[in-house]
Amino acid sequence: MSAFFDSRWVAAPEAVIVLDGDALPQGFRAAGVAAGIKESGLTDVGLLVADSPETTSAARFTRSGVLAAPVVVCKTRTRLDAIRAVAVNSGNANAATGGRGMDEAARMQGAAAMVCGVPEDRVAVASTGVIGVQLDGRKVTAGLLAASHELRADGHGAFGEAIRTTDKFAKSARLQVALPGGPVTITAQAKGAGMIQPSFATMLCFVQTDAQLDAATADRLLGDGVRRSFDRISVDGQLSTNDTAILQASGASGVAVAAGSPDEAILREALDALLRQLALLIVRDGEGSRRVGRVVVRGDDRDDAERCARAVANSPLVKAALHGGDPNWGRIAQAVGLAMTDRAPVDLDITIEGVPVCARGAAVPFDQAALDAAVAGTEVDYAVDLPAASGTPAVEAEVFFSDLSHEYVTINAEYTT
Amino acid sequence: MSAFFDSRWVAAPEAVIVLDGDALPQGFRAAGVAAGIKESGLTDVGLLVADSPETTSAARFTRSGVLAAPVVVCKTRTRLDAIRAVAVNSGNANAATGGRGMDEAARMQGAAAMVCGVPEDRVAVASTGVIGVQLDGRKVTAGLLAASHELRADGHGAFGEAIRTTDKFAKSARLQVALPGGPVTITAQAKGAGMIQPSFATMLCFVQTDAQLDAATADRLLGDGVRRSFDRISVDGQLSTNDTAILQASGASGVAVAAGSPDEAILREALDALLRQLALLIVRDGEGSRRVGRVVVRGDDRDDAERCARAVANSPLVKAALHGGDPNWGRIAQAVGLAMTDRAPVDLDITIEGVPVCARGAAVPFDQAALDAAVAGTEVDYAVDLPAASGTPAVEAEVFFSDLSHEYVTINAEYTT
Repeated sequence: MSAFFDSRWVAAPEAVIVLDGDALPQGFRAAGVAAGIKESGLTDVGLLVADSPETTSAARFTRSGVLAAPVVVCKTRTRLDAIRAVAVNSGNANAATGGRGMDEAARMQGAAAMVCGVPEDRVAVASTGVIGVQLDGRKVTAGLLAASHELRADGHGAFGEAIRTTDKFAKSARLQVALPGGPVTITAQAKGAGMIQPSFATMLCFVQTDAQLDAATADRLLGDGVRRSFDRISVDGQLSTNDTAILQASGASGVAVAAGSPDEAILREALDALLRQLALLIVRDGEGSRRVGRVVVRGDDRDDAERCARAVANSPLVKAALHGGDPNWGRIAQAVGLAMTDRAPVDLDITIEGVPVCARGAAVPFDQAALDAAVAGTEVDYAVDLPAASGTPAVEAEVFFSDLSHEYVTINAEYTT
Repeated sequence: MSAFFDSRWVAAPEAVIVLDGDALPQGFRAAGVAAGIKESGLTDVGLLVADSPETTSAARFTRSGVLAAPVVVCKTRTRLDAIRAVAVNSGNANAATGGRGMDEAARMQGAAAMVCGVPEDRVAVASTGVIGVQLDGRKVTAGLLAASHELRADGHGAFGEAIRTTDKFAKSARLQVALPGGPVTITAQAKGAGMIQPSFATMLCFVQTDAQLDAATADRLLGDGVRRSFDRISVDGQLSTNDTAILQASGASGVAVAAGSPDEAILREALDALLRQLALLIVRDGEGSRRVGRVVVRGDDRDDAERCARAVANSPLVKAALHGGDPNWGRIAQAVGLAMTDRAPVDLDITIEGVPVCARGAAVPFDQAALDAAVAGTEVDYAVDLPAASGTPAVEAEVFFSDLSHEYVTINAEYTT
């Protein structure tokens, strides 16, 4: 098995082989070009198109109350169950850009449709980069035209490069999945918490498969996968205006995946592992990150567990302790207390790397040197049990998070807009 | 007017004179001693007592779901409207210490009662410092006994010193307030975000006056004051298990402050300014802080305004930009978007230091150099207007916050428990 599935929190599914190379699944072509949006001169416009009119799709977007223009265009002007082309630019988020920004996003959609020869409403657009600066539509249009001349079946890598900002490493994968009905291929390109200027990070992920899926199945698979991956990560508790995840299925493999079939179950497992591993890569590449934490909170109530897990994952004190390799469980207790305001006493149990450190709200003795060593690795596991009336917690919430480092402060304080 | 009221966000009330020296208001005595709880050897046990059985009081505590033992003791075993003695230790928070910690807090209350000659249920206890470590009750008892021999009418400074952890500067004040009924004195000792070992910060504030207040008036005055001061600050969005604020009124001045009287109005104004200035000092002394921000969010809905103000104040991206002297308003828009999930479009207006930078969700041109200079000071003002149906926002929420610095990371990552 390839090194792609390298987190202990993601099991590589048996039916999956990780592939090298840049070939997209059958029925897809892509390209990435430098259009001059990034000052660095690196590629900054990506174009990906599915050749078949039968292509199905699903999409998920940021839930922010302040949406970037391309997100609004996708949500209002795109057939999200039938996306054929995806046009992306990096270097400018086209967010907080008002009516003119909306016009530019619509123009980007129109230009992509024209150069790909597909209807406008089958084009999704996405942007990532600085906010509050108008996107230069002429550069985007010229970039899309150039990209259309370079569309290739092995454009996986080029497209993935074009969506990066300051991601330190590529976040993409090619998988072959042995379904009962035959083999299918999945490719995915993601980007995470990078900055080209101090704005906020944007998470983008594009997934292609040559499996044949009806749109409802694609939507269910993407929705379930996102819920267990990108919805479960936090670099700094902040929410981008631009987050976008798109799954496209060309059907070109001829392998039909019927709803409720064993094929769907295996494809679901593969997609789940793929998205979770990509999500972990985004956390790992979080600004200044050197360690990834996972917190699992168990309890009787889903909202309580979720709120506590988020509070732990987003606590600057917990994150700084993770950075310092300090098994400081008092900060975890504090974060849970914050999430359970006015609910005292919350007599919680805490374990770190499987070692109980707090039981029913009080310290328990543990081997400090052994625990210090256990939290010095690149992945640290925290578990919190809230008091459960039944004795057996009914639900759990899991969040993956990065540490808080000097580099995070440097990146976000010392660069200027 | 003294340098105490040095924030542009707090007007020094006309009826107030800031006093030097260490005299407590009439009817109070206090002391601080070194009991060996802090490894540094600095004073770590404070004792304050009101001589008159007629003393009234009011108190407020942390709303954390995980309460320190002294908070539980105060809430369950103390007559909070008639506190005569306050016993405090620094160097150990007595939090997450289970049943034994509860016993130690109760013993601390009992020992203070004995050495002061007051009933147990008229003693409040408070602790601050490392959590998850048992408090050494013998040291506390010995310290309280020693303190009882040193109780002095000019113990204001000594008591204030004993409650500090790593506060970089004292946070205390002596005020004389000219009420229509005669002059009264107020003293206050507060501590903020300091660490003796990496645990979480604790906010404590003790206020004494020789005004004659009934308990209900004391409660109303303290409650209103806390709501506009300590409830409006954030160093890192974290909530201590130990936060405690206590107001005591000895009545020894003979100046009675009747509910609803002009005396109450002027005393309220003085107390409000005092608590706000102390709260600002706590933010200013927040771990690693070099700048204080204020965000005011206006809108139609109180919950929305409050949630948005908290999201801005606690955004690590906004705080890092404040640290860097970067008027990065895109991060403010992002934080508001996070607080207004699923409510898009939120077309907000943002001003920084009075300069409009975003109108109806889109960038507006501004003089970058002038704004850069404006945010380089020690206090930076942000205002956000949410869309108001009426055109005139009905409510506003204000939060003061510190910046996010390298020193915050150093303090919280590089020291170990």
